[in-house]
Amino acid sequence: MSKGPKEGNKDVEKDKEGRIATRAESYPDWYQDVIREAELAEPAKVVKGCMVIKPYGYAIWEKIQRELDGRFKDTGHQNAYFPLLIPQSFITREAEHVEGFAPELAVVTHAGGEALEEPYVVRPTSETIIGHFFSKWIGSHRDLPLLINQWANVMRWEKRTRMFLRTTEFLWQEGHTAHANHEESLAETIRMLNVYGDFSDQVLAMPVVRGIKTESEKFAGALQSFCIEGYMQDGKALQAGTSHDLGQNFGKAFDVKFQNERGESEYVWQTSWGVSTRLIGGLIMSHSDDQGLVLPPLVAPIHAVIVPIYRNDAEKAQVMEAAARVKAQLADIDLGPPRSRYRDFVEVVIDDRDLRPGAKYYHWERRGVPVRIELGPRDVAKSQVVAKMRIDSEAGRGKEFVAESDFVATFRDRLLRYQGELHRLARERRDGAAITLDSWSDFEAAFTGEKSTFAWCHWDGTRETEAAIKEATQATIRCVPLDGQGPAAEPGTCIKSGKPSPRRVLMAKAY
Amino acid sequence: MSKGPKEGNKDVEKDKEGRIATRAESYPDWYQDVIREAELAEPAKVVKGCMVIKPYGYAIWEKIQRELDGRFKDTGHQNAYFPLLIPQSFITREAEHVEGFAPELAVVTHAGGEALEEPYVVRPTSETIIGHFFSKWIGSHRDLPLLINQWANVMRWEKRTRMFLRTTEFLWQEGHTAHANHEESLAETIRMLNVYGDFSDQVLAMPVVRGIKTESEKFAGALQSFCIEGYMQDGKALQAGTSHDLGQNFGKAFDVKFQNERGESEYVWQTSWGVSTRLIGGLIMSHSDDQGLVLPPLVAPIHAVIVPIYRNDAEKAQVMEAAARVKAQLADIDLGPPRSRYRDFVEVVIDDRDLRPGAKYYHWERRGVPVRIELGPRDVAKSQVVAKMRIDSEAGRGKEFVAESDFVATFRDRLLRYQGELHRLARERRDGAAITLDSWSDFEAAFTGEKSTFAWCHWDGTRETEAAIKEATQATIRCVPLDGQGPAAEPGTCIKSGKPSPRRVLMAKAY
Repeated sequence: MSKGPKEGNKDVEKDKEGRIATRAESYPDWYQDVIREAELAEPAKVVKGCMVIKPYGYAIWEKIQRELDGRFKDTGHQNAYFPLLIPQSFITREAEHVEGFAPELAVVTHAGGEALEEPYVVRPTSETIIGHFFSKWIGSHRDLPLLINQWANVMRWEKRTRMFLRTTEFLWQEGHTAHANHEESLAETIRMLNVYGDFSDQVLAMPVVRGIKTESEKFAGALQSFCIEGYMQDGKALQAGTSHDLGQNFGKAFDVKFQNERGESEYVWQTSWGVSTRLIGGLIMSHSDDQGLVLPPLVAPIHAVIVPIYRNDAEKAQVMEAAARVKAQLADIDLGPPRSRYRDFVEVVIDDRDLRPGAKYYHWERRGVPVRIELGPRDVAKSQVVAKMRIDSEAGRGKEFVAESDFVATFRDRLLRYQGELHRLARERRDGAAITLDSWSDFEAAFTGEKSTFAWCHWDGTRETEAAIKEATQATIRCVPLDGQGPAAEPGTCIKSGKPSPRRVLMAKAY
Repeated sequence: MSKGPKEGNKDVEKDKEGRIATRAESYPDWYQDVIREAELAEPAKVVKGCMVIKPYGYAIWEKIQRELDGRFKDTGHQNAYFPLLIPQSFITREAEHVEGFAPELAVVTHAGGEALEEPYVVRPTSETIIGHFFSKWIGSHRDLPLLINQWANVMRWEKRTRMFLRTTEFLWQEGHTAHANHEESLAETIRMLNVYGDFSDQVLAMPVVRGIKTESEKFAGALQSFCIEGYMQDGKALQAGTSHDLGQNFGKAFDVKFQNERGESEYVWQTSWGVSTRLIGGLIMSHSDDQGLVLPPLVAPIHAVIVPIYRNDAEKAQVMEAAARVKAQLADIDLGPPRSRYRDFVEVVIDDRDLRPGAKYYHWERRGVPVRIELGPRDVAKSQVVAKMRIDSEAGRGKEFVAESDFVATFRDRLLRYQGELHRLARERRDGAAITLDSWSDFEAAFTGEKSTFAWCHWDGTRETEAAIKEATQATIRCVPLDGQGPAAEPGTCIKSGKPSPRRVLMAKAY
């Protein structure tokens, strides 16, 4: 970026910003307020359930995209693009798939001034149309594995929507791969689950539990679905990404066959996996506080704001010169790893608006800018800067006075340390709240009213018990954890039915 | 990319590739054949007028995107995302706009299992919906200029489609900006026209004429439209990008007002500008030859292929070791400018398939890979490589024998020199074919049957004459050139009507 995202000058003019509800007052209101005040997005209103992603929000999505895209390419995937519209009949070919998606479809019935012979649906996901093309592209075991990813918009006509978390249209990527046997497709499913999990930990600073969905929560048409589940500050879980072992279901529905090495014709084994703009909702609810947005530096559009402090023109000239010098030095720092495809240059804004410093602090705080730099005449005289990290007040830390040269030399470390701190805080929050429950009355108490947490409980493995738990408490089984992702796997008795259970599963209310 | 785009192994298995028609036989067939054989895209068939962009084609689009995106950001623009669906009533608010787009709309009438009260159209372009949001975001002159860009898919229900050039759905970017007065919005219109023109010259190696569209060719709803027009090898013109001076038309239709510095309420002045996947069609028709695709290095997904040559396992081991060493050295070269946001690392494929070298040469030639490197035991012994550029045969040049160290040290220069050569050849082709015509019989002769060229002719400036010329010859006025973009501006008489004309305009048949 040659300059930072444009500020909402209307706010500036009025020198006032909207109020952000505290999390204690109303978590849902707080969430909407944080998004509005940081200018991340707004409800489209004129298009049901849609949102407009504003520049500051879109800049976060671009950082998410480029980092994920690099990880997909590093694991051998290639991008391609398939049609937005899917013949309606395609959706019905896989029985579970149509059952899952039919109620949410948007349908194009007219085009070019005429009624269409066969309507098209706007893609809710692309297994069907990509299955169709895979059947044309794959003939032999030598064509496998076929490893494709698509960055696209999709549409699901949701009844209740919430910005980033659930919108009628959303942006995402969908990986689609085909393999010669189940061993390889399952390995791919887990590989991509771990790409998502590592990305979430390392880039979003959002710790996640990696696990397997139950039958009733899996993707419509999959053999099994793997997921990453993030812990939100209100105790609810966010399914932040999924990776599906599709088996041969879509292969059979779309006749995707290959000749194996023995010359026999077989259906391919497929996977699909996706993450979406929902990740931005997860970011917000993982880190932000009552002052507004908090952003990990690796996805922050702006890393530092310099607030010049002066009482007259002479001081202003002096301070602005120093501000420009500091900005220029910081802007040369590349946050990315040495040989990555992108350079992640530090982005600095000098806020020279005609406003009190306090109003500027407030303005940038709610936009989650990691570092605030104050520069006054005394600082310039001492060749120092005054630095404050976005969460220092909350953490009980005051301002730091740092020699300018040291500040510049250690700035990258400062940001990466802050990135680590946000991850640690999110993990501590989650692990501090997570509980192990063994009695149904304790379970009911933990999920009374709006309450939720990460509860590790035994479950008898039946769909009936799962439904009864949900019916009684709104809590659901988020996943059966993979090894090392929760309490050690030990047998016990189901918290609801008292029947035997092989291991504890993760239960929580979910977004 | 960690590895080059996957090869079509079916082709490999059969050790045969499809035939490419020569340009002389049939230019349209040649175009389709080049796309198919390079595996850039294929017609979707099951979705009317749509195509699938295959990995090798999409990799070119990604290079186009990242380079353009950087240029947009360097000129102060920010990306955002607006809804895919537009309330049908929005389209009708600007009279010319609805007239231009209504016949091409795809309409969503049902969603979530119900008929919608008001249908939505799938965006054919986003002036209307973005106008709606601009009216909410803009209040004061301090909010201006507002400089937004969107990367998106759009849909226009075209009767006759052709891959990349005209498809029902296509990928593009659309810039939308708002300004306080016409001077500024016009300056922005021309600034972005020049961003497109420079990009086309420098990155696509496709020389373009920059000009203004006539009234009958301008964008539906604009005051005036600027364009870049490329010269295709069959003499036709390709409108490769447009930049529109929208005046206050959409401001009035969507009530986008601001308070000026005198406190008066005024409508904003807007621009919009876009380029699309059509650019890939332009690339193909600017450079490719009867052997297949030719790609400028700055948009090539693969820059070099190494073909190892050996007769036995001992030779193979020796040659493969050298190939790996050359590849590793080349892969460290960054083609991009020093401080760009992206690193454009050289991508090298070692083709170690079990095929004759000739079959490999043929395979990569039709994919337009700029450099072929042959490596045999004698070359390894001499520490040399055998290099051949994609167009060397056509240019009457043979293979080069270059010391390995020199080859690596000068590889970046080699690619940039080749980039320049493609641009020079395209310009010479265009300038060699372009003609100045002053008699109507010569004009008719120049456009007989399928014939076309760039013809600089006088025109009386009326819509009637323009229509008569098109009716008689299918040639249209591509643009009124900006100064310096064609013959010096001198008055004359119209080639059709004989009436006075202030300057020559560019006429050609067009895609």
